[in-house]
Amino acid sequence: MPTTEVLFEPGRQDIVVTREYAAPPDVVFAAMTDPALIPRWWGSRRFETTVEQMDVRRGGLWRFVARHREPPSTPSSPYAFWGVYHDVVPGALVVSTLQFEMGGPGHLQLVTDTFEPAGDGGTLYTNVSLFQSAEDRDGWIPTGMESGIRDSHDLLDELIGVTR
Amino acid sequence: MPTTEVLFEPGRQDIVVTREYAAPPDVVFAAMTDPALIPRWWGSRRFETTVEQMDVRRGGLWRFVARHREPPSTPSSPYAFWGVYHDVVPGALVVSTLQFEMGGPGHLQLVTDTFEPAGDGGTLYTNVSLFQSAEDRDGWIPTGMESGIRDSHDLLDELIGVTR
Repeated sequence: MPTTEVLFEPGRQDIVVTREYAAPPDVVFAAMTDPALIPRWWGSRRFETTVEQMDVRRGGLWRFVARHREPPSTPSSPYAFWGVYHDVVPGALVVSTLQFEMGGPGHLQLVTDTFEPAGDGGTLYTNVSLFQSAEDRDGWIPTGMESGIRDSHDLLDELIGVTR
Repeated sequence: MPTTEVLFEPGRQDIVVTREYAAPPDVVFAAMTDPALIPRWWGSRRFETTVEQMDVRRGGLWRFVARHREPPSTPSSPYAFWGVYHDVVPGALVVSTLQFEMGGPGHLQLVTDTFEPAGDGGTLYTNVSLFQSAEDRDGWIPTGMESGIRDSHDLLDELIGVTR
């Protein structure tokens, strides 16, 4: 199975995540933007995610609530995330905002997802999360976010394999 | 008249603009978010701005078209800008996206406007434009953007003085 790469470049305010999928861009895009599938991959195996709203179109709103499946050492979940879709090009691009509700003001990201044809009928998926400061970005690094993203992408990969 | 400060800090991907207004936050907020007033200040004296859409609420869309009033040395206008509102707190906050249409993909900003009480019944207005890269940010510096922002804010200041 391909591996998700997570890149934090010094002197930048973003995190760049890339992953190759064996399925073509329209299939990966459709899986990632399907509200019914979100609870089965988004947030990794550690969280149970509920989709309260997910209207994937320009100006549409989204809101997910994630709860730990196993009680964590610090009782901090549920976590709520919400945002708006800035632009959606089926099979190719999703640009959206992401606000981490518990983080208070300032915990806001501009997220760009691109789906490009790659390899033999596959997809190169790139996710760029732009933060309001390098400090805000760096604050996510020790949260287990990196392994969480890899785990989420592994789940999505399995899901795409099953549903195709 | 107070002066608009424009700050490009090295090692960051944003431009921070501050301006004090003599009117209170709710008045400055109302003036800035009124589609009927936009053509009278937004884009500075150099441009004639048309509001095609401006729905100031979470998930609302906006789109402005700016045309040079005097033919420029390079015939590059009209310029179109559009985006969505991520969050709107009347009298206090507007978070929105801004895409420069002619710039192609990648010319996207996350814009945070805050309105705070300051001085004797006045407002400290702060505008943070977050760019996708430092290079993209720096590309705006030689465009006359800085003097354009000052001029726009001067026009808004006069307008607030007249309409209060």
